[in-house]
Amino acid sequence: MPLLVVGSVAFDSVETPTETREDVLGGSAVFFSYAASYFSTVRLVGVVGEDWPAEHTELLRRQGIDTSGLTVEAGAKTFRWRGKYQPNMNDRETLEIHLNVFEKFDPVLPPEFRKCKYVFLANGSPVLQSKVLDQVPDAELTIADTMDLWIQSQHDELCQVLRRIDGLVLNDSEAKLLTGDENLVRAGHKVRAMGPKFVVIKKGEHGAMFFGRDETYVMPAYPTPQVVDPTGAGDSFAGGMMGYLAERGNASPQTLKQAMAYGIIVASFNVEDFSLDRMRQIGRADLDERMSQYRQMLSF
Amino acid sequence: MPLLVVGSVAFDSVETPTETREDVLGGSAVFFSYAASYFSTVRLVGVVGEDWPAEHTELLRRQGIDTSGLTVEAGAKTFRWRGKYQPNMNDRETLEIHLNVFEKFDPVLPPEFRKCKYVFLANGSPVLQSKVLDQVPDAELTIADTMDLWIQSQHDELCQVLRRIDGLVLNDSEAKLLTGDENLVRAGHKVRAMGPKFVVIKKGEHGAMFFGRDETYVMPAYPTPQVVDPTGAGDSFAGGMMGYLAERGNASPQTLKQAMAYGIIVASFNVEDFSLDRMRQIGRADLDERMSQYRQMLSF
Repeated sequence: MPLLVVGSVAFDSVETPTETREDVLGGSAVFFSYAASYFSTVRLVGVVGEDWPAEHTELLRRQGIDTSGLTVEAGAKTFRWRGKYQPNMNDRETLEIHLNVFEKFDPVLPPEFRKCKYVFLANGSPVLQSKVLDQVPDAELTIADTMDLWIQSQHDELCQVLRRIDGLVLNDSEAKLLTGDENLVRAGHKVRAMGPKFVVIKKGEHGAMFFGRDETYVMPAYPTPQVVDPTGAGDSFAGGMMGYLAERGNASPQTLKQAMAYGIIVASFNVEDFSLDRMRQIGRADLDERMSQYRQMLSF
Repeated sequence: MPLLVVGSVAFDSVETPTETREDVLGGSAVFFSYAASYFSTVRLVGVVGEDWPAEHTELLRRQGIDTSGLTVEAGAKTFRWRGKYQPNMNDRETLEIHLNVFEKFDPVLPPEFRKCKYVFLANGSPVLQSKVLDQVPDAELTIADTMDLWIQSQHDELCQVLRRIDGLVLNDSEAKLLTGDENLVRAGHKVRAMGPKFVVIKKGEHGAMFFGRDETYVMPAYPTPQVVDPTGAGDSFAGGMMGYLAERGNASPQTLKQAMAYGIIVASFNVEDFSLDRMRQIGRADLDERMSQYRQMLSF
């Protein structure tokens, strides 16, 4: 089942307590695509500037990602983000954002892409997300991400999106911000009451929580001792999760739960190095091996 | 298998964002004992002042807790603690501590208590913990708790205790403080290298991590939407865990894992009301029912 993702494609500059990397490959749609590509065909829609090296596109293509929806805009620059992680590697500060070509991103999906049944709306404004939803009338499973910025600046537009999608993925502080509730269990239920059939709250090093109609559950993060760069953890989580759903071709409660576990496993690899560096070293067998350890860890 | 606990017995005054309770029954040994009593015979050693109401002792006795080691000291006052929880109900501030009779607590165990094979050293200085260890030469399983105060003020004495015990239970910020490592997975291994056979790091609403010789695992907290007062969560976790170990009479890797899950379940009830109020309403069947939901939650 081909999986469509629309979101940011970026150069990230990342400062950690021990190391800094400048202008490495990043962006929500990139992390998502790569993570999902272990499981499913991925169709990426995004925009970059003319400073974009062809080798980045090539890297994604070699992984089987369809990049024909990645527009290179002449005379423009690619989205750039710079962030700094605190010693706990969980909290981070955004030092610089240059939206550049992403600011006016107004995606027009290639005809073939409009038939996708599985759609992920990665980082982008609710207005942009709505425009994408308008172009995928046959979608069977739509999941969106959101951010504090949109919760604050486009609250009404976000509420409209929430009524149109199947699932929402957001992090713990965003769930608290959106609902005004400091208890994550209550916050998750409140977000679900705003429209989506299910809600996933990402808790970084503490794992993720799922809120559906009939069940609520929490899964811990896989305890990797090697946390080098958490950038893209949330997007690779969503990519692993939705890639698995697309592979299985259904979103039953049981499949959703397995998918969430796969999301956690992919994210646990992603944080072990900068950019896509760790994900580039692994394959599906590595994911399955760690998944088996994860299942073992949760059996008693 | 009788279980011995030595620790604080206190009056707690608890301020939450919505409600305040004055001078309610608390203390590490009290929460621990009550939690462990669902599983095992418990022998409590502690000290209180003459302001201690007999009904508190009676409450513990009715639960099958042997309170013959609870000394009432004439002319003295019971340990008092006052704390205030932040809106997230995870972070708290200590507003007042009056050690009172606990300051000079120098436990002399009744002869029958010295034969206990399972021993928990609850809140108390490492010097006090060492003195208890001296009195239980036949102990087969000793687990201790510690606090930031002792890590800072009695570091060497704590290191000596760590070399004498089987297990250490501490919270995430304490593990970071003790090791200087912000990554909890690495911190857990480093604490274990200081002596204990196993280490449990409590993460409050995010569950707990286990570090043994051959395995490391994480278990999420049970997602209760009803968090009224987290006071005693760590002690009731330890009580549920060690009570189960005492019931089973062994500390094999498999039993330890089940025990940790029981600790999580007991703690999840404890936080649902002030003091022992929620634990007083439930029995072993309620624990087993929630445990079954918890196992279900972690199966996929």
